[in-house]
Amino acid sequence: MAENPVNEHYYAVIMAGGGGTRLWPLSRKARPKQMLRLLEERSLFQTSVERLLGLFPYERIFVVTIQEQAAELQEQCDQIPVENFIIEPMPRGTASVIGLAAVALQQHDPQAVMAVLTSDHFIGNEENFRRALAAAQDVALDDYLVTLGIQPTYPATGYGYIQRGEALGSYRGKAVYRALRFKEKPDEAHARQMLESGDHTWNSGMFMWKCSRILEEMRLQMPELHHGLQKIARVWGSADQQQVVQQVWDGLASVTIDYGIMEKARQVAVIPADDLRWSDVGSWDSLFDVLESDEHGNIVMGGEHIGVDTRQSLVYVNQEHRLIVTIGVDDLVVVDTGDVLLVCRKDQAQKVRQVVDQLKKKGTEYI
Amino acid sequence: MAENPVNEHYYAVIMAGGGGTRLWPLSRKARPKQMLRLLEERSLFQTSVERLLGLFPYERIFVVTIQEQAAELQEQCDQIPVENFIIEPMPRGTASVIGLAAVALQQHDPQAVMAVLTSDHFIGNEENFRRALAAAQDVALDDYLVTLGIQPTYPATGYGYIQRGEALGSYRGKAVYRALRFKEKPDEAHARQMLESGDHTWNSGMFMWKCSRILEEMRLQMPELHHGLQKIARVWGSADQQQVVQQVWDGLASVTIDYGIMEKARQVAVIPADDLRWSDVGSWDSLFDVLESDEHGNIVMGGEHIGVDTRQSLVYVNQEHRLIVTIGVDDLVVVDTGDVLLVCRKDQAQKVRQVVDQLKKKGTEYI
Repeated sequence: MAENPVNEHYYAVIMAGGGGTRLWPLSRKARPKQMLRLLEERSLFQTSVERLLGLFPYERIFVVTIQEQAAELQEQCDQIPVENFIIEPMPRGTASVIGLAAVALQQHDPQAVMAVLTSDHFIGNEENFRRALAAAQDVALDDYLVTLGIQPTYPATGYGYIQRGEALGSYRGKAVYRALRFKEKPDEAHARQMLESGDHTWNSGMFMWKCSRILEEMRLQMPELHHGLQKIARVWGSADQQQVVQQVWDGLASVTIDYGIMEKARQVAVIPADDLRWSDVGSWDSLFDVLESDEHGNIVMGGEHIGVDTRQSLVYVNQEHRLIVTIGVDDLVVVDTGDVLLVCRKDQAQKVRQVVDQLKKKGTEYI
Repeated sequence: MAENPVNEHYYAVIMAGGGGTRLWPLSRKARPKQMLRLLEERSLFQTSVERLLGLFPYERIFVVTIQEQAAELQEQCDQIPVENFIIEPMPRGTASVIGLAAVALQQHDPQAVMAVLTSDHFIGNEENFRRALAAAQDVALDDYLVTLGIQPTYPATGYGYIQRGEALGSYRGKAVYRALRFKEKPDEAHARQMLESGDHTWNSGMFMWKCSRILEEMRLQMPELHHGLQKIARVWGSADQQQVVQQVWDGLASVTIDYGIMEKARQVAVIPADDLRWSDVGSWDSLFDVLESDEHGNIVMGGEHIGVDTRQSLVYVNQEHRLIVTIGVDDLVVVDTGDVLLVCRKDQAQKVRQVVDQLKKKGTEYI
């Protein structure tokens, strides 16, 4: 168990407003990935909350989401106080999510240190995760913007990379480095270089910083956002809050925290966390990293399945009274949600996105 | 158009009582292949009847089936007189089907010549088929048991083979040969030898002969069956008919005409028919021989389909409001019947039978 820092100024902010469709057809606009009970009885959102316990009490766990998803998330985790659910009028990128949460927390506690966390990732080793967060809290107290870096295991082109520089010392036994450079999703050649360099980690999208520190960085780098956030801060908790947030959000461009802040920020630290068994569960094939397969390498979830000469394949069915038969297939993903059937080679699972884009254009019922 | 022989003694007998499950999960016990409207608007049974017109009027087309299938078949082809549907109490192999039909026809017309035809095969060139039948009728008048042989195109292990011997002459422009030998489903090496020999054809399961001639051959080779058939002949058309047929059938072993008669019969002729575009539609992959595929080699039947990098694959759906998405798949068969989804490599489609056998043992609802 990580030593509980028992610091009343530590807060967790879970970003849970996304509408990702990378696990389409299971994830949909109205039922995004974080709400799915995919890996176990609990949804990804629920496990994202539960792995924080011991480090944060429910009262200091905040959730940023959109109106459409708030009720379902509150129901999935009703120990979090309702007032800790912060509603964004519409998604405007992670920079604005974080800015809004920082304003809310600072109103609540001017000394707040916030962990920025994802709601739809898998973390196999939760104990190591809490250790990394506890170390990150200490680093954040030294006025760093802290990122959690994931040890890369293959030349992924779907993640951002962070290059580390000089060692900043050891915090709670974890080596901490200055972050030299953020590199967004690279091409394969660059990804391979960075993997081989040994001094790059994947950007996990999880951060730790003082609210005051990130807001100051926004003032310098994203003055328009900062200006809007100040307006919101002035009415926070008043009857005007909702209207002002709406008005500010209407004028915002969608910007990620990586692009908007991290790439140019001063005093950024990275904690390489190589022992989390982390996955962003970003495509169907990623389930093979996080779920146990049977003796033929298959993962079968739901439904009745008969496999003849079937190997390294995933079968997901959420329909009752349905028999799935696979014969002579390797490395195949079969997902049956009743209205949609996806049959996809495992190594092409990222192309699901193309199909979703195509369906969006057509305006069909299937997204 | 084949010259119409206009011979009132020519009859067609369509064997339509099979319960094949080789196109499972579409074909079921209660909905066998011949009833399926698979290839077009008409079922295989309907097209099997229609391609006879011009050679046989409806009144001289007989159908042998089982009670469970009779109503549906009558409905599918209501121009055939109801009394032409001959009911077998239960399937007992093709020898007994043919024997029963021969008895029925001989009661009707002692000079009857019967074509024995399948109900669930595809024949692309119907004109050539009728030509071959017309030739076979002439050969049958010379007291031969006549078989239609299909020109083999690959070393199939799923068909029987017929070796031809001396030429018996030309009938209506078709070369006719003595049949030397019937060889049941061979192993691959033998199949290859026979294919290369040039003097073998596939056994189509379609025959032509005088009723008197086949009954005499049964008397010699299958005396028990013949004895039973004589009992039936004595009561045919009387109130006792059904009961006697039932009683005879209860004591019969299931024997095919090939094994029971053809392998040892005297005076057997084969008409090689190399121009029928014939398929027994015996497995899902066989549909690629009989249906047109699109520019990617795909066959899509029913439902809404989006294919990304999908080639040489078959998608069959008989469900409304269902989207099938295939990504990065080649040579795959996807069949969705609502209660069952089959995903199968094309070259392993014959293994569907293993699955059906497994389900039969389990006694599930899916067969």
